[in-house]
Amino acid sequence: MSVGSKVGDTDIDFNIDGKQTGFLRLPYSEHDDAWGVIPVPLAVIRNGDGPTVILQGGNHGDEYEGPIVLGEIIRDLDPASVNGRLIIVPALNLPAVQAGSRVSPIDGLNLNRTFPGDPSGSPTQQLSSWVNDELFPMADAFVDLHSGGSSLSIVPSAIVEPSDDPALTARNHEAVAAFNAPMSVVISNRGDTRTSTASAVRAGLVTVGTEMAGAGTVSPEAVKLCRRGVNNLLHHFGVFKSADASPPVMGTEQVFHELGRNAHVLTEDAGVFESFHALGSRVRAGEAAGRVHSLSDPRKPPVELTFWADGVVYGLRHPGRVRPGNCCAVVASPCE
Amino acid sequence: MSVGSKVGDTDIDFNIDGKQTGFLRLPYSEHDDAWGVIPVPLAVIRNGDGPTVILQGGNHGDEYEGPIVLGEIIRDLDPASVNGRLIIVPALNLPAVQAGSRVSPIDGLNLNRTFPGDPSGSPTQQLSSWVNDELFPMADAFVDLHSGGSSLSIVPSAIVEPSDDPALTARNHEAVAAFNAPMSVVISNRGDTRTSTASAVRAGLVTVGTEMAGAGTVSPEAVKLCRRGVNNLLHHFGVFKSADASPPVMGTEQVFHELGRNAHVLTEDAGVFESFHALGSRVRAGEAAGRVHSLSDPRKPPVELTFWADGVVYGLRHPGRVRPGNCCAVVASPCE
Amino acid sequence: MSVGSKVGDTDIDFNIDGKQTGFLRLPYSEHDDAWGVIPVPLAVIRNGDGPTVILQGGNHGDEYEGPIVLGEIIRDLDPASVNGRLIIVPALNLPAVQAGSRVSPIDGLNLNRTFPGDPSGSPTQQLSSWVNDELFPMADAFVDLHSGGSSLSIVPSAIVEPSDDPALTARNHEAVAAFNAPMSVVISNRGDTRTSTASAVRAGLVTVGTEMAGAGTVSPEAVKLCRRGVNNLLHHFGVFKSADASPPVMGTEQVFHELGRNAHVLTEDAGVFESFHALGSRVRAGEAAGRVHSLSDPRKPPVELTFWADGVVYGLRHPGRVRPGNCCAVVASPCE
Amino acid sequence: MSVGSKVGDTDIDFNIDGKQTGFLRLPYSEHDDAWGVIPVPLAVIRNGDGPTVILQGGNHGDEYEGPIVLGEIIRDLDPASVNGRLIIVPALNLPAVQAGSRVSPIDGLNLNRTFPGDPSGSPTQQLSSWVNDELFPMADAFVDLHSGGSSLSIVPSAIVEPSDDPALTARNHEAVAAFNAPMSVVISNRGDTRTSTASAVRAGLVTVGTEMAGAGTVSPEAVKLCRRGVNNLLHHFGVFKSADASPPVMGTEQVFHELGRNAHVLTEDAGVFESFHALGSRVRAGEAAGRVHSLSDPRKPPVELTFWADGVVYGLRHPGRVRPGNCCAVVASPCE
Amino acid sequence: MSVGSKVGDTDIDFNIDGKQTGFLRLPYSEHDDAWGVIPVPLAVIRNGDGPTVILQGGNHGDEYEGPIVLGEIIRDLDPASVNGRLIIVPALNLPAVQAGSRVSPIDGLNLNRTFPGDPSGSPTQQLSSWVNDELFPMADAFVDLHSGGSSLSIVPSAIVEPSDDPALTARNHEAVAAFNAPMSVVISNRGDTRTSTASAVRAGLVTVGTEMAGAGTVSPEAVKLCRRGVNNLLHHFGVFKSADASPPVMGTEQVFHELGRNAHVLTEDAGVFESFHALGSRVRAGEAAGRVHSLSDPRKPPVELTFWADGVVYGLRHPGRVRPGNCCAVVASPCE
Amino acid sequence: MSVGSKVGDTDIDFNIDGKQTGFLRLPYSEHDDAWGVIPVPLAVIRNGDGPTVILQGGNHGDEYEGPIVLGEIIRDLDPASVNGRLIIVPALNLPAVQAGSRVSPIDGLNLNRTFPGDPSGSPTQQLSSWVNDELFPMADAFVDLHSGGSSLSIVPSAIVEPSDDPALTARNHEAVAAFNAPMSVVISNRGDTRTSTASAVRAGLVTVGTEMAGAGTVSPEAVKLCRRGVNNLLHHFGVFKSADASPPVMGTEQVFHELGRNAHVLTEDAGVFESFHALGSRVRAGEAAGRVHSLSDPRKPPVELTFWADGVVYGLRHPGRVRPGNCCAVVASPCE
Repeated sequence: MSVGSKVGDTDIDFNIDGKQTGFLRLPYSEHDDAWGVIPVPLAVIRNGDGPTVILQGGNHGDEYEGPIVLGEIIRDLDPASVNGRLIIVPALNLPAVQAGSRVSPIDGLNLNRTFPGDPSGSPTQQLSSWVNDELFPMADAFVDLHSGGSSLSIVPSAIVEPSDDPALTARNHEAVAAFNAPMSVVISNRGDTRTSTASAVRAGLVTVGTEMAGAGTVSPEAVKLCRRGVNNLLHHFGVFKSADASPPVMGTEQVFHELGRNAHVLTEDAGVFESFHALGSRVRAGEAAGRVHSLSDPRKPPVELTFWADGVVYGLRHPGRVRPGNCCAVVASPCE
Repeated sequence: MSVGSKVGDTDIDFNIDGKQTGFLRLPYSEHDDAWGVIPVPLAVIRNGDGPTVILQGGNHGDEYEGPIVLGEIIRDLDPASVNGRLIIVPALNLPAVQAGSRVSPIDGLNLNRTFPGDPSGSPTQQLSSWVNDELFPMADAFVDLHSGGSSLSIVPSAIVEPSDDPALTARNHEAVAAFNAPMSVVISNRGDTRTSTASAVRAGLVTVGTEMAGAGTVSPEAVKLCRRGVNNLLHHFGVFKSADASPPVMGTEQVFHELGRNAHVLTEDAGVFESFHALGSRVRAGEAAGRVHSLSDPRKPPVELTFWADGVVYGLRHPGRVRPGNCCAVVASPCE
Repeated sequence: MSVGSKVGDTDIDFNIDGKQTGFLRLPYSEHDDAWGVIPVPLAVIRNGDGPTVILQGGNHGDEYEGPIVLGEIIRDLDPASVNGRLIIVPALNLPAVQAGSRVSPIDGLNLNRTFPGDPSGSPTQQLSSWVNDELFPMADAFVDLHSGGSSLSIVPSAIVEPSDDPALTARNHEAVAAFNAPMSVVISNRGDTRTSTASAVRAGLVTVGTEMAGAGTVSPEAVKLCRRGVNNLLHHFGVFKSADASPPVMGTEQVFHELGRNAHVLTEDAGVFESFHALGSRVRAGEAAGRVHSLSDPRKPPVELTFWADGVVYGLRHPGRVRPGNCCAVVASPCE
Repeated sequence: MSVGSKVGDTDIDFNIDGKQTGFLRLPYSEHDDAWGVIPVPLAVIRNGDGPTVILQGGNHGDEYEGPIVLGEIIRDLDPASVNGRLIIVPALNLPAVQAGSRVSPIDGLNLNRTFPGDPSGSPTQQLSSWVNDELFPMADAFVDLHSGGSSLSIVPSAIVEPSDDPALTARNHEAVAAFNAPMSVVISNRGDTRTSTASAVRAGLVTVGTEMAGAGTVSPEAVKLCRRGVNNLLHHFGVFKSADASPPVMGTEQVFHELGRNAHVLTEDAGVFESFHALGSRVRAGEAAGRVHSLSDPRKPPVELTFWADGVVYGLRHPGRVRPGNCCAVVASPCE
Repeated sequence: MSVGSKVGDTDIDFNIDGKQTGFLRLPYSEHDDAWGVIPVPLAVIRNGDGPTVILQGGNHGDEYEGPIVLGEIIRDLDPASVNGRLIIVPALNLPAVQAGSRVSPIDGLNLNRTFPGDPSGSPTQQLSSWVNDELFPMADAFVDLHSGGSSLSIVPSAIVEPSDDPALTARNHEAVAAFNAPMSVVISNRGDTRTSTASAVRAGLVTVGTEMAGAGTVSPEAVKLCRRGVNNLLHHFGVFKSADASPPVMGTEQVFHELGRNAHVLTEDAGVFESFHALGSRVRAGEAAGRVHSLSDPRKPPVELTFWADGVVYGLRHPGRVRPGNCCAVVASPCE
Repeated sequence: MSVGSKVGDTDIDFNIDGKQTGFLRLPYSEHDDAWGVIPVPLAVIRNGDGPTVILQGGNHGDEYEGPIVLGEIIRDLDPASVNGRLIIVPALNLPAVQAGSRVSPIDGLNLNRTFPGDPSGSPTQQLSSWVNDELFPMADAFVDLHSGGSSLSIVPSAIVEPSDDPALTARNHEAVAAFNAPMSVVISNRGDTRTSTASAVRAGLVTVGTEMAGAGTVSPEAVKLCRRGVNNLLHHFGVFKSADASPPVMGTEQVFHELGRNAHVLTEDAGVFESFHALGSRVRAGEAAGRVHSLSDPRKPPVELTFWADGVVYGLRHPGRVRPGNCCAVVASPCE
């Protein structure tokens, strides 16, 4: 039996016990297929009453550790170990995932700048509306598994989305600490309200983001960190019957960092960026961050870029080529 | 005074002493510029008689360590330290370099599959013809500085191009050993005769290739290795008056590896590749190399790939996305 | 004298008798033409008071029978035969029609997913707003002539758009029966409210859709059916003075079909689809519909697809190539 | 210190005296740069209290005289000559300016059809929202420097945007007369409310537009006219301490023209347009404007186009190629 | 063990008995995969000495019946039934087949205009060189299974490629008659020497082509005809031990047709083509073939096209849209 | 009756008297039309024995004066006025002409860099082979009518192609003088042998080129000059019976200019070019030619460009945008 949603059909019933795996079928009437669908993978694993946690991957299509780990959970997790309900969307922006692209090849949109979405909009806007309008109301917690994507290498980390409600912010901090990543970072995306985590927080859900490596590749180490962190989180949220699941890994107490206004090192010149520091290095404001080479005119000396904040090198641009406005490095500063 | 070549003009005179920096101006009559040129950077540093060495970067446009190091030499090297002549082409396929692309955006060609070139062909074919027909006859040695490019991470290494003439092959081995890279590898590109190094060997030049890191980024460590290796090579070729240049770095004796017929691990499935081994690991034929995940259908278990040769993991695919036929890993085996 | 509309100009006066043929000139300020227009063909044929019927083609740009028949009416119909008013828009999404594409090459939009439109939006949104906000209020009935388009072959048929108002639904049934197509089908487009017919029904107009063959070609038989059906409809609506027009063709009583939730046969695999049944065949749920071949790996056996409903094969995918989510076959079931 | 805006950051403080030059940094999270910005050039030159005038160029990216003149003012104007405040945005739609394109290569939008903009929309919509929501409220007057763009050659002219408020319309006339261009023209863009000048007038600002030559090139004469006109305007607005700035150039009394409903000569045929009249010629309704040649079939005689209004040839299509709907010529008629 | 070819590797040994299925791995060094391959499917089924027949599909990537039938033979044929050797290449231009495109998306080339190929050329040229230089010398007969492709619907037919050698032409006629298609047609492609069949004939092979339906779709009837015809041909060539294979289907004596100089009905106008005749109809020179409608200007009457030869309607353009030079219909005339 | 050529068919017989107008139909088997042609317009006007002159336009697709004038001759010239034969190809690279592009949209080639062509190559190469191999052997003289194209404005001029044979060079000078353009210029295209005029000279034909205005537009003045010049030339070649044709216009004695090695002013910077001199101005080496503005960073002062030769400003770049290597101005110097 097919169960409708505002934007598509699915065979999955969110309210029955057991493991169901299938698709949200979003109708998309394009030149090449008037009556076809975008089949977004969807799994529900439920065992009686208990908290509901949404695990999401593929918000961006070139960030792979989250989708890999969520695929393992979908195939391997025994519903008997569960207490409550997992809603797993491992490849949300499916067209982007199939293209290995941050943005959707269909409408060119970055899903994470489309919340709260629009059920009558383009496919990416319909998908964010599905998450915001249909999934969030069913859930207690939301986990959005990102990596750095094609343009950035990032220190593997769990992310706090701040809320206007201090109590919710505190609960987000606790959940991020439970994930137990190498770094825990508060990121408000310069206040952008169009992200999935900002939207989840507005909906009152305990919310955790991640940044697992990046550079558009799969990092075997980050896959392990992500697998462990999600397991830790599910214990933290109480969705595991502890006797039946692998135990959480306890870490040392987390020191939280944040990205301030001066975190980003931007280039004003085109060329090729060479970093002077590895990811994770400690740096100071005023120190040289790297230099931009003009390969097409070797007579020109390279231009040096400077850090504007003290802290740790949290992210580095991956592609060699840069043009004015590109972010070359990002510094995370200890939270005050 | 402008000096002609078969394919373009340049203000540089290859036969006078001192340092000259300018461009080969290759006419390219396109829609947007009927009478314009492609300005390929070119430098000649000459001091009296002595060997002529060609230093080339930007054969592919997304391999950056070579062009960065050659830019430093162009700006910083004192001609008084030189004994003979350096011809430096740091960004040969300029349109590809400006695009950060392996292939030229103008004609879609991989310059390293166009040798010996064609002076009446498309721009990339004209450029390979310039190197083959005009530069090679002036030179004793040729150094082609590659990195892994956007699709591959490679162990930094110097490359032997084998020749039908055993004496030349031996001299190529000696030069590669002098470069003193972390690995020295014999690569015949499956016998392809259309590469610049195969072409240089046919012309009788002592020839050295490199693969410096890759992944379409700049590796600060590989920049250092490349800088040191080129300095070593120039000492080896006798182009430096030793009193005036930084001394070469002596290494341990090089163990040579080679890429055999079974070196390449290809996928027959589409998905996302996760490697099980880091670059430089020792592996055996039959061992699992990694697995390919189907993110669009998490019900499908990943497909495992297997090594077909014993040796060292020399290269790994960088982008997560794969489709059938993609090379996911490369094993270098010790030379017999 | 030029008469304005909210989105453009036209020389046509909707309120005078006789035949006028011209264009809605929609300003479109693009790179190549800052002050140009999109000239959407428009005709009004009026003779005194009487019902107003809108005849529309070119909602999608690769569906040709409707526009061909409407062009004949525009050129050949004697206004003296008319009783009331015909508003004829034979190529509504003109840029799509000129491109032979379902969607507009200008903004990538499927016009039939943009209703009710936006007069300040992109050209396709402006066109749907023109139909919805300016044409619908003038009319009593609306006929939207579709064919299957590039991706589908469909049994020539007239379509009932259901309304929340049972009386209007009944009148739509009567009009569809009058069209007298080989099949009459109720299609709600999975409840999508963004189509022109859903919008017309909301505006209270008696509404008829069609699907005339398809596959992105012109079917000579479907041209004849469409010509006859439109003539029948205009008699039904009372817009013809019967003495002056070719008489309607009476058919047998129509049996109505509908597309249910399980009508669509979707593939989960990529490859090439081979149907086992011709259009119009009777099939049963559980029966094999066809198979998907993997041409790039002939070792893999083809994957069989299954019908999920009893009924008649109403539509078949035309292009051989399929990817996951594509609609391969559609079954129409008798209305209950 | 970085100062926020709703859509981005800038280091510029609008409220301090002196000359500041920098960028509005609009975050744009794309595939190639997740955390980068679009750096829109911005300058503020302020000296005490006095009127605030916004000078804008680069609304379209292929209109160059305005940006060139504004760059001169930014580099050369002594703040001591100023009385009040200049807010200068010389290349508003920066991605379009860098591409030399009327519309943005990022979202395909014509900025001058996106007002009042949307701070949560695409980059072009965010930019128009910044101008409308953040700059307009700070200002008394607005000057939007256009040229004809790639598709049109236009008589250099200053433009009156009419207002519903006759007093504001009168002040716009006075300001346009002060600019002292070869022609002064009233253009309402067929009533389109989505332009920057229509939006400025709605905000109550005295508003002046221009059209300086065009054809996607730089006209040295138009650069001089634009330089002189802007200087005249700033005197008119009282932003110059007259003792310290070059004096305004007095012209003869302006005769105002307007573009009426019949101003545009559109082609209904594809081919190549040959004009019969030079820019600035006096013509009459019914006179031949030019002809459209079918180069692909020389057997066909050319098709003649006709003027529909009396007046002066104000604009001519620049590219030879035309297709149906293209605007080939524009006639400005004396205001009544 | 990997066996080399001039253009790539394969694991298949052409000289051993039994059934082998694998790939020709053509190295293709592109931006996204420096060391990857194009894996062209290849099978060899051999049983002792006897004739060698090449069965080829996927010369064009949007013609599906041949590849489907060859996939069945590869999976299902018992080598024990064979007498001699079958070399089966079911999807020769693999990149085109994967794209569902006549031409390769890699180099834009129509493989059937690249013979005799170039082992140092682009991938499509390398593939035709492989067939011409490496496969043809091993074989006695060559079968190239085409359909009409995306642009044409064609009467299912077997094709005679004429030779300068009358004896070979006669043997080609016999083989075509044995295929026993609904029509047998002599096509010389206006004398073009760059096709695979022209090249096979030059190499002295008995050669059969086909055209199985077309329109870029899969015709279930044509699949059956193709399956039967290939079985017939293999019996004719003596590659089947008759006791072990399904018997050939005997037909009536074939009447041969040919495409003469006046066979093609070309349009000189753009618009949408409506045919007046179904495939297979008998027509006469001077008769109307159909008409071209101008949908963008319904005031224009359609333009009629005329046949220039007597005969049978052998092919019809499939896509509705036409532009000048397009082939709308093709007439096959009885051979004299 | 259809007459073959090596690359296509035509209904035109080059050897009969009278006026024939039709097409060379070049077969081009593309995805969208397997059996269609490129219909290149072709006319032959012959009256008895006498010289044969080829008149060619549309070598580049964005140069319009020549094709317009040749269309007039095709439609209007009375064969009775002719003495000998005119072969007129007004739109040689038809796909480029239809696209308004210098290069062919089909294969990306600039036809004027493909001579002597290749009858088995891509369409543009086939067209140059047709001109070189089939038309040149029939003719005594060749006229190739160019304009500046989209990227250049050029002083209307007739062009001498120099020959190795001084006698032929002299005859080319005489013919160019007879054309009687505002300037007469010797251009060797930096010695490029791949142009149509270089090829015609190699074939021994008296050869005249032109450059009529440019900028991708139609110049009414240049149309008149071109019309007059072609008439003059045909008188000069003796193809007109003087009594029956409009008389030639006698000019003052021509002063010849040439483009030397230092004629071209190239930019090394990206930005927008502003010329300091109008076309036709006299300038000196060392004088400032113009400046390049950085619109994206107004803090940077513009960069000045310098002339390298004395003479007349013969050409100016039209598009405002420049990137390194673009030709901004061209100086013609008096011949020595």
